[in-house]
Amino acid sequence: AEEAAALRAQAEAVRRLKQDKADPDEIAKEVAKLLEMKAQLAGDEGKPKFVLKTPKGTRDYGPKQMAIRERVFNAIISCFKRHGAEVIDTPVFELKETLTGKYGEDSKLIYDLKDQGGELLSLRYDLTVPFARYLAMNKITNIKRYHIAKVYRRDNPAMTRGRYREFYQCDFDIAGQFDPMIPDAECLKIVHEILSDLQLGDFVVKVNDRRILDGMFAVCGVPDSKFRTICSSVDKLDKVPWEEVRSEMVGEKGLSPEAADRIGEYVQLHGGLDLIEQLLQDPKLSQNKLAKEGLGDMKLLFEYLSLFGITGKISFDLSLARGLDYYTGVIFEAVLLQQENEHVEELVGVGSVAGGGRYDGLVGMFDPKGRKVPCVGVSIGIERIFSILEQRLEASEEKIRTTETQVLVASAQKKLLEERLKLISELWDAGIKAEMLYKKNPKLLNQLQYCEDTGIPLVAIVGEQELKDGVVKLRIVATREEVNIRRESLVEEIRTRTSQ
Amino acid sequence: AEEAAALRAQAEAVRRLKQDKADPDEIAKEVAKLLEMKAQLAGDEGKPKFVLKTPKGTRDYGPKQMAIRERVFNAIISCFKRHGAEVIDTPVFELKETLTGKYGEDSKLIYDLKDQGGELLSLRYDLTVPFARYLAMNKITNIKRYHIAKVYRRDNPAMTRGRYREFYQCDFDIAGQFDPMIPDAECLKIVHEILSDLQLGDFVVKVNDRRILDGMFAVCGVPDSKFRTICSSVDKLDKVPWEEVRSEMVGEKGLSPEAADRIGEYVQLHGGLDLIEQLLQDPKLSQNKLAKEGLGDMKLLFEYLSLFGITGKISFDLSLARGLDYYTGVIFEAVLLQQENEHVEELVGVGSVAGGGRYDGLVGMFDPKGRKVPCVGVSIGIERIFSILEQRLEASEEKIRTTETQVLVASAQKKLLEERLKLISELWDAGIKAEMLYKKNPKLLNQLQYCEDTGIPLVAIVGEQELKDGVVKLRIVATREEVNIRRESLVEEIRTRTSQ
Repeated sequence: AEEAAALRAQAEAVRRLKQDKADPDEIAKEVAKLLEMKAQLAGDEGKPKFVLKTPKGTRDYGPKQMAIRERVFNAIISCFKRHGAEVIDTPVFELKETLTGKYGEDSKLIYDLKDQGGELLSLRYDLTVPFARYLAMNKITNIKRYHIAKVYRRDNPAMTRGRYREFYQCDFDIAGQFDPMIPDAECLKIVHEILSDLQLGDFVVKVNDRRILDGMFAVCGVPDSKFRTICSSVDKLDKVPWEEVRSEMVGEKGLSPEAADRIGEYVQLHGGLDLIEQLLQDPKLSQNKLAKEGLGDMKLLFEYLSLFGITGKISFDLSLARGLDYYTGVIFEAVLLQQENEHVEELVGVGSVAGGGRYDGLVGMFDPKGRKVPCVGVSIGIERIFSILEQRLEASEEKIRTTETQVLVASAQKKLLEERLKLISELWDAGIKAEMLYKKNPKLLNQLQYCEDTGIPLVAIVGEQELKDGVVKLRIVATREEVNIRRESLVEEIRTRTSQ
Repeated sequence: AEEAAALRAQAEAVRRLKQDKADPDEIAKEVAKLLEMKAQLAGDEGKPKFVLKTPKGTRDYGPKQMAIRERVFNAIISCFKRHGAEVIDTPVFELKETLTGKYGEDSKLIYDLKDQGGELLSLRYDLTVPFARYLAMNKITNIKRYHIAKVYRRDNPAMTRGRYREFYQCDFDIAGQFDPMIPDAECLKIVHEILSDLQLGDFVVKVNDRRILDGMFAVCGVPDSKFRTICSSVDKLDKVPWEEVRSEMVGEKGLSPEAADRIGEYVQLHGGLDLIEQLLQDPKLSQNKLAKEGLGDMKLLFEYLSLFGITGKISFDLSLARGLDYYTGVIFEAVLLQQENEHVEELVGVGSVAGGGRYDGLVGMFDPKGRKVPCVGVSIGIERIFSILEQRLEASEEKIRTTETQVLVASAQKKLLEERLKLISELWDAGIKAEMLYKKNPKLLNQLQYCEDTGIPLVAIVGEQELKDGVVKLRIVATREEVNIRRESLVEEIRTRTSQ
């Protein structure tokens, strides 16, 4: 509208100049200006106004971010492989009904696809439900697998804290009928290995059991029908104080104040084997079958964890609830305790970076005959880990390479494009990682500068004299040293000089 | 309904037995049968009937398929890295308007997300348009990157031939203002390297140029307005004979028979430098500015390709058109010529496994000021390659390992679970890939069988005597040889024995 007004004003100015029979040069100048304004306006109107952005809650990963991502993935994948896991992949979307009834209140966060004819589809919300569908569909009763892929949640994004609508999960699960707590202990060992390996600072893994929670609710006088909703109140204890949770239980959810107070006493407890022993003696809990089972298994779990030497970072915590409906036994969640690196100015929200538990009923929900396959697994939430490492890297002086190029093929004189192409082709065919500038006659200085900028350690320089002598001049970027290498030895020389 | 009828019949049988005062044991037996039938029927009705499947046109990848997939990815990624590419990633969905107007007739195949409030989103259709959006959004004018990710097309799936609705693309692109045909030649070199490396049998890479096509249409008398639609007719020549394409041009698309016949003469031409020279002398084509430009660049391209030593597999082919709207210069497509492996019974459809070209206008469509960034790139279509390798592997005797486990921690006697847990924990912490059976007291035979089944080469056996002696018995699965190794040397011994 502003531009249209300016255009009208300019047209009026031209009209007046003509009326006034002004200097033809001046008229011509103002007419030209008018035409330019018209063209620009038409251009603006003709071109649809794009909003240049990624969808809300999503991001691109540039080369630097990808380099960090690869480091983290490599650490996680080697751990999963160290534990003998196979790998699978499933489609990014599932039939809508596959996801229905698995996530409780969180179901509203599922992305649906538009009905364009055919099946109704939804984007996967996690990797656990597709895994269970895969097991039931292929009648697999025994597998240890990992799966690294993106999942989708229409949640409120908090991108600086690493909370996205599209994010990676790295899942490791053990499915099969086994002796109690051996696979469960391995899942906790894996969390411990990965978080130690990534050097994210101090952490603690909180552990609880759905059966202990349910037993606790029962002995506190929570009616059966309120177990799930009271459980989701308890789940908030890591974010809000007990008083608030208590008033939600009593006020919104209609629990008796006495029951709430009894819960309040339990959920502040956390510890190790000693606490488990104490609760096994608890006059109320020890009378409850579910709680007793859960506590017995928890004791066994801690015995195995102490053989693994990792109980120092594990805390049996009665306030840990976890939201998802499908858990049936042990549940756990790893939390970073603090930001160890002082260089990071803006504190990345300290929080959960891994979680998991036992879900013995989920596969049975897909099996036509309801056959169960007991499962336990862990999911590493790497977006938060990325955020921390990304900010740490930005704060540090470290320059991260985004390519692995070993050598730049360069020339010192003009008219050597063909020779560069021939040499680089030889190098590629020998498996050497090589680049060249896409110019016919690049300046040597620009070629050397490119190496400085991208961290390429070697330059192979062809020149008239070198061609005659059957050699290539190899320059070591860091030291500026230059040596003539016989052409037939060049590949070997580059390999030697770039092997760590 | 059948079950209900059976239930009624059984109830009637029970009623009669009672009426007849039959043997009480017999009555009890029939009543028990009745109750069981009732329970079963109730169970069936209570459970929702799931369709256990993945969405149409998609598939799961099990561990074996993933092992093949990793091999292919590794070959492709090392080639991309050898050429100095960085890597990026973008979200699986884009704003709907980002994809609008980029794919011509194919736009109807785009998956839209349901409008759940907020932005309108679509699943990406390829990796090229998101790449262009990424460049414009971040004002990047110069990058060489690869991107490996899934794309989505609501096409008619043909899964045995490797055509899916969800499939991987492996894209390598060079963006930036460079001297002509140097990046274009590198893209063709990459296709050549990857297809040779994967040993898929003989192949040919067809090359053409949009400018040569447009020039050809012009000199044949195709009206400007019909260039795109006639181009899409030409695109069908790899599947249907010329006569059919001709009648589509004349009948459906209203082209004059003379123009069609002139096109017919050109599109049967294919060859190398000789053909380029011939067409540069062609009295009609050589008068057309676009065609002349295209032919000049094609000549340069062939010169570079001959320096790379790969012209033997490159064919300048005037019938190659490629569907996508965004190409502006060189286009190419790699085709497998035949199935080399005779063991494969069911012939996998021979066809295109890679394609690409130059798209100099796409980034400008996203830039608010229309600033152009010239781009050229290649996309490897690996689903078809997977299909071929999968079928080849199934036909062969080769047993593919799906884990990398080096050693199974086993015990020869009972009550050694704790010792196994301690040992495996030591091995994991030392970086050894180790597994154990999740049983308290597994039989040695079962443990050895597990190694046979999964290809684990070593077994570390703990027993009473070995514990006393401070050793572990290491068994080599292939030879059945057993040696006692001092516990402190075990890690080193396993490393030595499993290093290739």
